[in-house]
Amino acid sequence: MSTPTESPASDAARTPDVPVTPPDVSADDELSADERALLVENLRYTLDGRWRAVRDTVREQSNRSELLPDPSRTLDEARSHTLGVVRELSQHGFASAGFASDHGGTGDVGASITSIEMLGYADLSLMVKAGVQWGLFGGAVENLGTARHHERYVKGIIDLDVLGCFAMTETGHGSNVQALETTATYDRDTREFVIHSTTPGARKDYIGGAAEHARYAAVFAQLITAGPGAEPESQGVHCFVVPIRDEDGNDLPGITTSDCGYKGGLAGVDNGRIVFDNVRIPAENLLNRYADVEPDGTYTSPIENPNRRFFTMLGTLIRGRVSVAATAGAAGRKALTLATRYGLMRKQFEAPDETDEIIVMDYLGHQRKLLPLIAKSYAIACAQNEITAELHEVQSSSPDDSDAGRQRQLESDAAGLKAYATWHASHAVNVSREACGGAGYLDENQLSIIRGDIDVFTTFEGDNTVMTQLVAKELLSSYADDVQGLSAGGWVRFVVEMARDVVAEKTAVRQVVQTLLESSDEDTEKSNLTNRGTQIRLFRNREDHLIRTCAQRLRRALDDDNDAFEVFNNAQDHLLKVGRAHTERVVLEAFIEAINDCDSRSAAELLGKVCDLFVYSALEDDLGWFLMHRHISVERAKAIRRGVNTLCQELRPHARTLVDAFGIPENLLAAPMLEHG
Amino acid sequence: MSTPTESPASDAARTPDVPVTPPDVSADDELSADERALLVENLRYTLDGRWRAVRDTVREQSNRSELLPDPSRTLDEARSHTLGVVRELSQHGFASAGFASDHGGTGDVGASITSIEMLGYADLSLMVKAGVQWGLFGGAVENLGTARHHERYVKGIIDLDVLGCFAMTETGHGSNVQALETTATYDRDTREFVIHSTTPGARKDYIGGAAEHARYAAVFAQLITAGPGAEPESQGVHCFVVPIRDEDGNDLPGITTSDCGYKGGLAGVDNGRIVFDNVRIPAENLLNRYADVEPDGTYTSPIENPNRRFFTMLGTLIRGRVSVAATAGAAGRKALTLATRYGLMRKQFEAPDETDEIIVMDYLGHQRKLLPLIAKSYAIACAQNEITAELHEVQSSSPDDSDAGRQRQLESDAAGLKAYATWHASHAVNVSREACGGAGYLDENQLSIIRGDIDVFTTFEGDNTVMTQLVAKELLSSYADDVQGLSAGGWVRFVVEMARDVVAEKTAVRQVVQTLLESSDEDTEKSNLTNRGTQIRLFRNREDHLIRTCAQRLRRALDDDNDAFEVFNNAQDHLLKVGRAHTERVVLEAFIEAINDCDSRSAAELLGKVCDLFVYSALEDDLGWFLMHRHISVERAKAIRRGVNTLCQELRPHARTLVDAFGIPENLLAAPMLEHG
Repeated sequence: MSTPTESPASDAARTPDVPVTPPDVSADDELSADERALLVENLRYTLDGRWRAVRDTVREQSNRSELLPDPSRTLDEARSHTLGVVRELSQHGFASAGFASDHGGTGDVGASITSIEMLGYADLSLMVKAGVQWGLFGGAVENLGTARHHERYVKGIIDLDVLGCFAMTETGHGSNVQALETTATYDRDTREFVIHSTTPGARKDYIGGAAEHARYAAVFAQLITAGPGAEPESQGVHCFVVPIRDEDGNDLPGITTSDCGYKGGLAGVDNGRIVFDNVRIPAENLLNRYADVEPDGTYTSPIENPNRRFFTMLGTLIRGRVSVAATAGAAGRKALTLATRYGLMRKQFEAPDETDEIIVMDYLGHQRKLLPLIAKSYAIACAQNEITAELHEVQSSSPDDSDAGRQRQLESDAAGLKAYATWHASHAVNVSREACGGAGYLDENQLSIIRGDIDVFTTFEGDNTVMTQLVAKELLSSYADDVQGLSAGGWVRFVVEMARDVVAEKTAVRQVVQTLLESSDEDTEKSNLTNRGTQIRLFRNREDHLIRTCAQRLRRALDDDNDAFEVFNNAQDHLLKVGRAHTERVVLEAFIEAINDCDSRSAAELLGKVCDLFVYSALEDDLGWFLMHRHISVERAKAIRRGVNTLCQELRPHARTLVDAFGIPENLLAAPMLEHG
Repeated sequence: MSTPTESPASDAARTPDVPVTPPDVSADDELSADERALLVENLRYTLDGRWRAVRDTVREQSNRSELLPDPSRTLDEARSHTLGVVRELSQHGFASAGFASDHGGTGDVGASITSIEMLGYADLSLMVKAGVQWGLFGGAVENLGTARHHERYVKGIIDLDVLGCFAMTETGHGSNVQALETTATYDRDTREFVIHSTTPGARKDYIGGAAEHARYAAVFAQLITAGPGAEPESQGVHCFVVPIRDEDGNDLPGITTSDCGYKGGLAGVDNGRIVFDNVRIPAENLLNRYADVEPDGTYTSPIENPNRRFFTMLGTLIRGRVSVAATAGAAGRKALTLATRYGLMRKQFEAPDETDEIIVMDYLGHQRKLLPLIAKSYAIACAQNEITAELHEVQSSSPDDSDAGRQRQLESDAAGLKAYATWHASHAVNVSREACGGAGYLDENQLSIIRGDIDVFTTFEGDNTVMTQLVAKELLSSYADDVQGLSAGGWVRFVVEMARDVVAEKTAVRQVVQTLLESSDEDTEKSNLTNRGTQIRLFRNREDHLIRTCAQRLRRALDDDNDAFEVFNNAQDHLLKVGRAHTERVVLEAFIEAINDCDSRSAAELLGKVCDLFVYSALEDDLGWFLMHRHISVERAKAIRRGVNTLCQELRPHARTLVDAFGIPENLLAAPMLEHG
């Protein structure tokens, strides 16, 4: 298996479309231990990205198997344990990076995201618990509040004196948060807001921390007020700090919390519900960075347009979404590492003329299960590093200096990657579990726990379908300012009125991509499929084609005088495909850029193979589309299928190296199945 | 939405390939309550199949929410509870059907499988626990034993005085059970067998019941013996009844059981491990229907060929595999029912010019998530009913009257459907969970529990990948007798030597399929894609093409003097595709036959639409292959995509009817999310 040129599949190598191993890519068993260690090191350097030092610190701190989830804990025990570890983290200054230095933190957003991601290798409950406290609750106070809130809360948030939760979702509204039904009515007589759950559907639901530990909630509610003489009306959704429990953990007057109880996973997170019965809070508890209410009830905001105001507020909370995507990446990598290690030990069915059985990883079917997912994990990790860095830059710039277009682009990219990365992770974990058979189903081997924990990542912090659609809507409407918050029908009318077939590329094409495009034939069929420029072209052409035809389709349908919502709805599958195709192209280009920046020649060559497998698998997964729209010929399609096989066989000897390079702390990979094989 | 002819997607109806609603298929809201109830009744009649009376009995008995899994139970409590319910079932005569009347049962195999399947609507742990006791352990005694075993054990198995487990899988061997390492060595001096775990990998593992409840084990072990004067040698794997615990639940001497502990689901099943240290059992504990050992150690068997003997024994145990597939179908249907009901209540994002929000199920994206899976569930249910009936026939015929070819075909079909149905179920449950967002993640709404429970169905009772490959190997080698048990390489040599390109169809083509084929053009592109004959042709042509090209590929590769295992391995993805394509064709034809047998015109017409959606979705999922091999034109491929949209929109008004027809007891669908929407 380690000499792929002998295998029949590589007779396909006669055609230029099927990759062949360059002489420099040595199989692992041809490397000395030192050479292999260096290769792992160099691969990890690329995967770790800009905050690699932070990763190493967390690696060192977290390399303890007692951090792993323990399924024998009761719900109470799991929750207490998780809170205990979060306390321990806070004592080691874990949270400071997420807050500005003049609020008591150290102001390193990228470090904050990266360290929360690294917790995913230990326990996803721990990541979520920390993410809720510091990323969501802390993020709301930090980003939506002003000096008075920073002074009052941030230190306590960092050191856990102020335990909070993020009360946005309601029973009736998850995705459509503009329609939340909780109200915050200003009472000018007492200078208070009255927080109230107006309907059963207005109940805050699924809120991490609300069941037990949180003493404060960042509550999103319709702000209702009026200036003197006017009729009170809703100014849209705003965020308020609301105390919900006393020191002993009892609900405060007017507050009724309850427990969401057992879930599909994340046993260490106490998700709960909150109902407000005319709860009064001081007016200064409004997080008033983007809007305020004067004592007489007059509403003021530096942002005139209510939609823009709302989405500006939402936009600052992007950190949660980026963290969730990053952590999903970590969970996927961990599952693939466990499955790969098992696949390299496990033997089943005898080889012909051999007494020993065949290593499971030597079966093409098994390689095809795991290796393309490993390749995709590499690509996503690189894209994730870029998003983290971009978020860091955007949120590190002074607030008034911020570039709205850049922020908007980041939000869209983060939404797209959140969906792409979490779906990938959920799938990779499922496949990894299956690849380990009965052993994979035992909690002692971790995969089944990760499977339960990761599941909700596809729907929390933005439902993946809604996220994917958001990307497409932004692309089709060129990130126009006044399109956010439009109903589906209104958005269709807007897009059609833009009267443009092709949407201008908002971001500049990266230099490396530009160079590669220039070095490849515009006619993709004329160029070798292992040519990186051709690969980019195929991904870009698909995206452009989808955007153009989607716009045409919407226009034609509306011209025919159809109902605007129906026009939107009938094109929904097309829209979702636009979103996925765009994100996949962005992921590919990020991977290529990371390989380009890789200084080690042997690592870069191996990464090149991994990138080929990512591309070939992505093309194979969408072959129907490429053939149907004649972006790929039938001959090339067949070469792609063969190419996946060849690449799997070529990467097989590097399987252990590839997963070792994820750099998962060894004690977090504890699994009895890896002891006997 | 209920008038699809107005929707833009159905302007595609100008082409003949996109289905249009015939006037007779009325939307549900156009039916009176009585008419809808009758339609549901008629659909259910078809879905329920031959053992519909059994289904109704179990429905009545199980319509109690206290049968649902309760996540607050500790592992011990969950296990005791499950055993308690199994005891209750046995008191109501639940198990009698599975055993022959002269052994103390009532001898209705189909009824037995069907009632175990129906338990899946309540609690999958319950189904597995019952399945292990009566289907696996009981099935081994019933089918591999002889009168002495039947007399001694069957009554106790039925009424739970004899609690057993099925100890086949070992830590080192799951799929390759011919290589089990546990030995049973005959001692002629004492007329005993000595059961021994020869290596750490010989430990029996993942065995349901072995952790706590089982007092007996049906142990699969290499039988080692010799006649007078000869050297003892292994006669292959045989099954032995081994007592493992005393009345108080203590391990018997030489037995060491242990607990697999927490798992990804199935909390009510006590999976465990067994290690044997030279445990002596009387010689008569060998289940000796197919082989025996004379007092002097001479081994005898009516089946000369050891491979054939082994696979004959294995073949009689097929009931477990059929039950697992059937129950997975039930689990998938239940998850889809919960998600559909939620989708019909849940509203999100306002409609243009409306104050109310849009019902989630009205989004095309949501329809596309759920409706094709509902359609596939219908198709699979019909195929499952056929397998159950065939199993009933085969196992009800007198042993000596049995038709080896028919048995072999049944085993292959059961393997294929097991993989197809359990993968579908696992996917459907995942999608259903996601479609319910946060609510879907709470155990109170059941989906997350089903998700954890169903996961292992894809790998236990035969790993799905191995099962799918088995189907392909049987097809390619025409179910030849001497091919079972051959190594991969040996099998390749056999297939190549058959020197035939196309494999003879072993089963007669059904009459209804024959008629439909005759009424359609041989050139599928010339015939309407809604034509049932054309649909069958596309599925049959794909299967034939795959089998033929796979055989050619193996022959060519072996001719080139390649290593036989490598030839096999390089074609593994091709082989797996053969298996899937075959099973999907069988499923389609079973569905068509069931529709053909449906007496109600309105039900048959609705089923026809459901069948169209199953076909269009299956084609869409494999469009790359159909285009690449020119079985479908680009134009038709586009029509298929549009057709899925149109069919989803046409079936949307029937969504509730379609899931109601599954006939899941109402109290087993308890879910708070369905109370507030």
